[in-house]
Amino acid sequence: MKINSFFQKASIFFSLFLLLNIFSTELNAQIERVEPPFWWADMETSEIEILFYGKNIAEYSVSTQEEVVINGVVKTENPNYLFVTIETKNLQPQTLHFNFSKKKRVKFTQEYELKKRKENSALREGFSSADVMYLLMPDRFANGNPNNDSVKGLADKLNREAEGGRHGGDIQGIIDHLDYIKDLGATAIWSTPLLEDNEKTHSYHTYAQSDVYKIDPRYGSNEDYQRLAEEMHQRDMKLIMDYVTNHWGAEHWMIKDLPTYDWIHQFPGYANSNYRMETQYDPNASAIDAKYCEKGWFVKSMPDLNQSNPLVVQYLIQNAIWWIEFADLDGFRVDTYSYNDKEGISKWTKAIMDEYPNFNIVGEVWLHNQAQISYWQKDSKIGALQNYNTYLPSVMDFTLHDAMGNIFKEKAGWGSGMQKAYGNFVNDFLYPNPQNLLVFLENHDTGRFNEIYDQDFNSYQLGLTLIATTRGIPQLYYGSEIGMRGDKGKGDGAIRQDFPGGWIGDEQNAFTVSGRTELQENFHSFTKKLLSFRKNSKAIHEGKLTHYLPENNVYVYFRELADDKVMVILNNNEEEQNLDLNRFQENLNGISSGKEVLSGKQLQLKEKLSIAGKTPMVIQL
Amino acid sequence: MKINSFFQKASIFFSLFLLLNIFSTELNAQIERVEPPFWWADMETSEIEILFYGKNIAEYSVSTQEEVVINGVVKTENPNYLFVTIETKNLQPQTLHFNFSKKKRVKFTQEYELKKRKENSALREGFSSADVMYLLMPDRFANGNPNNDSVKGLADKLNREAEGGRHGGDIQGIIDHLDYIKDLGATAIWSTPLLEDNEKTHSYHTYAQSDVYKIDPRYGSNEDYQRLAEEMHQRDMKLIMDYVTNHWGAEHWMIKDLPTYDWIHQFPGYANSNYRMETQYDPNASAIDAKYCEKGWFVKSMPDLNQSNPLVVQYLIQNAIWWIEFADLDGFRVDTYSYNDKEGISKWTKAIMDEYPNFNIVGEVWLHNQAQISYWQKDSKIGALQNYNTYLPSVMDFTLHDAMGNIFKEKAGWGSGMQKAYGNFVNDFLYPNPQNLLVFLENHDTGRFNEIYDQDFNSYQLGLTLIATTRGIPQLYYGSEIGMRGDKGKGDGAIRQDFPGGWIGDEQNAFTVSGRTELQENFHSFTKKLLSFRKNSKAIHEGKLTHYLPENNVYVYFRELADDKVMVILNNNEEEQNLDLNRFQENLNGISSGKEVLSGKQLQLKEKLSIAGKTPMVIQL
Repeated sequence: MKINSFFQKASIFFSLFLLLNIFSTELNAQIERVEPPFWWADMETSEIEILFYGKNIAEYSVSTQEEVVINGVVKTENPNYLFVTIETKNLQPQTLHFNFSKKKRVKFTQEYELKKRKENSALREGFSSADVMYLLMPDRFANGNPNNDSVKGLADKLNREAEGGRHGGDIQGIIDHLDYIKDLGATAIWSTPLLEDNEKTHSYHTYAQSDVYKIDPRYGSNEDYQRLAEEMHQRDMKLIMDYVTNHWGAEHWMIKDLPTYDWIHQFPGYANSNYRMETQYDPNASAIDAKYCEKGWFVKSMPDLNQSNPLVVQYLIQNAIWWIEFADLDGFRVDTYSYNDKEGISKWTKAIMDEYPNFNIVGEVWLHNQAQISYWQKDSKIGALQNYNTYLPSVMDFTLHDAMGNIFKEKAGWGSGMQKAYGNFVNDFLYPNPQNLLVFLENHDTGRFNEIYDQDFNSYQLGLTLIATTRGIPQLYYGSEIGMRGDKGKGDGAIRQDFPGGWIGDEQNAFTVSGRTELQENFHSFTKKLLSFRKNSKAIHEGKLTHYLPENNVYVYFRELADDKVMVILNNNEEEQNLDLNRFQENLNGISSGKEVLSGKQLQLKEKLSIAGKTPMVIQL
Repeated sequence: MKINSFFQKASIFFSLFLLLNIFSTELNAQIERVEPPFWWADMETSEIEILFYGKNIAEYSVSTQEEVVINGVVKTENPNYLFVTIETKNLQPQTLHFNFSKKKRVKFTQEYELKKRKENSALREGFSSADVMYLLMPDRFANGNPNNDSVKGLADKLNREAEGGRHGGDIQGIIDHLDYIKDLGATAIWSTPLLEDNEKTHSYHTYAQSDVYKIDPRYGSNEDYQRLAEEMHQRDMKLIMDYVTNHWGAEHWMIKDLPTYDWIHQFPGYANSNYRMETQYDPNASAIDAKYCEKGWFVKSMPDLNQSNPLVVQYLIQNAIWWIEFADLDGFRVDTYSYNDKEGISKWTKAIMDEYPNFNIVGEVWLHNQAQISYWQKDSKIGALQNYNTYLPSVMDFTLHDAMGNIFKEKAGWGSGMQKAYGNFVNDFLYPNPQNLLVFLENHDTGRFNEIYDQDFNSYQLGLTLIATTRGIPQLYYGSEIGMRGDKGKGDGAIRQDFPGGWIGDEQNAFTVSGRTELQENFHSFTKKLLSFRKNSKAIHEGKLTHYLPENNVYVYFRELADDKVMVILNNNEEEQNLDLNRFQENLNGISSGKEVLSGKQLQLKEKLSIAGKTPMVIQL
């Protein structure tokens, strides 16, 4: 009995021990996520912080082969996270092994790949003022693969009838129409986000992401995204990713199991941003207003990331670099750039630009004052007033956009009509780099130009000519080139309609000449003609801008690069105007003829030049 | 015959010789002008360029007593001018003697006085944010001396019925009402110009000056102006001269006999400015636009001075310093500051500030963008973008003025109502010194606030409270304090009406309580109460401004200097508002009561505070 009893007890004890051991070596050992999922040797960002996620993973100690130096291991209040920082400098491409131990005994091992980089990856050239950027919303552009319109595990299913529903557009749809976009004269594509967004509704906009290492399966796979970049590069085109640093979706797996309480901004939980960006530099701002602006959430469904937490910034830096390296990107557009923690976003931007010094990143800085916009551009003297530098190469010319909605409706006046365009560019001295401003008639968050101007073809010609020939990087919004309308007042769906012909069974296919109405074809052929000229015009890409105070609602400016000179005339007057060319002699400098690009006509440039009402002229001198 | 004939001829020859001699020693010797008419010993500006004007004066050589060093003599293409530069350093106050010689023989002598300076003249304190500036037009304020309403030699005679005519106001009229202005709570007076303006019509504005060393006799004498300053200083008030560097009147004696062709900007002769100040810093500006802006004339009757001519700048510097020293001034307001030659006006301003380091000068920089206004303020980082520094201590907050015309008509909205006020001050980071901004509801060139708001007393209370309690130097325009109307659309006369009671025989005398209507008295007593409070509030003069994003059209801000705290609430909502005071705890910091200055009531500041619709509160905490 005694002995038996002992063995019985011992047996129970042993069984318990085994049971506990199973929990600790098998259940606990299960690593659910490793992020970044792999890295590359020979990166500027050679110190890499790998996140291991799994139930109680923090209970293990971690080691790796001898030649790999672990610089740090961070555990948080959540035992399911382990952040392990290693130095990859001088490591060859190889598979690393991370050993997870308890009581000095290795319980399990996780492989981690260090890949070989693509040649010259670090020196990739970002988009520039030599490009024309085509902005599209993938869900609304073209549905190349109807099989992925709804997928298991993602809540929001196909519903093309709903304005806020998923319409089925995808990466394959973009690839299918690269030739169309290239033929139009655009050289770069900014697609709104493609990473997984598992919201129950309105996931089509994809700004509330649930997994930032994964293309949303309704758009395709990570490999499809790589393929998109490859197809574009084969066509000499550039791919720009829409990156979101400020927030994730409430469905993000890390939001649902926060690594740290302060991974996101807590009040506790949700409070909305007041959207008053001015509080970020206003010396008179109350602390509470500044806090609610930056730390408040953009909307309730998008928890606001706390980039003042070094773990968060590092995570975002690595994720961004991972995508550039993985998908061979040519640029980022950064959503709600100015809503981020100022120091955090500066660190993020600098890290990327340090890794890729010729890359380009354009930040959405939706402000209505040039000094305020300039604040956010790299090396801004305005930012320097507060010892701040974002390192962000490119910002958006929102003041020009503000003017665009009125200019072509207005008659001549001190501050109206073409004076508004002129008045925008006079403030270029505030920008450290005016050539790296995105110029646009509209985007996916604004009313469509062709709605505001009631599809007036003349206004479109004037507007497009302006953005295509002034300094900066022109950005077109998909559908603009066929005169697509869209009233922001009717909701976002109205400005994000499906491109006709992007879906099998569409009544109309505006991707083809024969499928376009006469009006659409007018818009399209004008756009193509202008952009085709722009593509090869070094003077437009890089030349000095010299402009003249508009008279009678006629705006005249020149772009000059050495001997390459282009004269642009925008007659916003209803009446034909007869220009006295003597006024422009500092640029014309005796040149007496030129070719008008849009009409193809050779022009005499003597004393006078007449230009029809509501018409642009682009003259190659 | 022969001998006779010889003597006859000799006699004729001798007579001719005598005659020529008379011309050269008497007629030519006549020095018509010496400018500056005298100077002072012990000036920072010790090298002084004296202009001698007289028929063919340039034919003489000039010398002076041994101890006086002549640093240079400049002759121009006009022989009637001689510019003689002497060094006065180490010279005692005395009378100097300038000898004018031909063929080494002194033909005549001109005395020149070096006076003794007033003690501590160099350290005079200019106006500051501790002041409230009262702007008046002397012709329209009060007629203290009806005997000088028209004077011999000046074309424009009394015509009180004409809107653009001379109404007879003068310096004595100002002196007579200094007690009124002081009692109102203003501590400084900016009078529009008082120097001689001999235009045939509209000389009342006095910006087209014909002699810049002489008070216009229709306003009084130079000594009257000195007396005005003395009377003001006895009352602890400051006198600010309206100085015009950009242009003179066509009747100026030097314009009628130009020292040099390029003393003024010539095209040849007149061409108008395009008024596009932006061309002065726009990197894209065409040279021709920039030229017409700065060198074009402000109006045809005002030839544009060329401050890139060193003789012109030096003349203007000396003239300005002469007035400060002569009349014991406390500040300048400079007309059309940004229309001057940029380097020239910078030199002018620096020279004055070097002479009087604590002086103040406010420039009229009528622009509609804070970055552009900031460009012109001393040590601006925006100006520094182009290596430019005006040395101008104070500029005008024209963007606040722009907002003022709409704010109190507007309901709550993203950018409307009180948001416009808030939105102005957020850009203070662009100014090197926001405390040295002039803040105003109106001036002599704009529509009157009480016209725009139809004499709405509530709007006036809100508007005045804002300019009297925010950062900067409040400026009142005469008559505002009695609700005076004036529609700019009806012409300048409408906004420059006579102050009732300023003329003998006026039906009404609004300078006295009994003479004011009930409505006028409401305006006046409110103004007086607010400004009287301001006079002794260090927190308002110098305190830090902290403001809160307006909610429901209510704007709340604090001014704090150590323990001195003032809370300002502007309820621009029609409805009573019940403020949650918790939001303001970073400033209230537990303070639970305060005295409301305008009502005199003691207030509890616990959880909530109610404030009536369209009402300001100024709470001393």
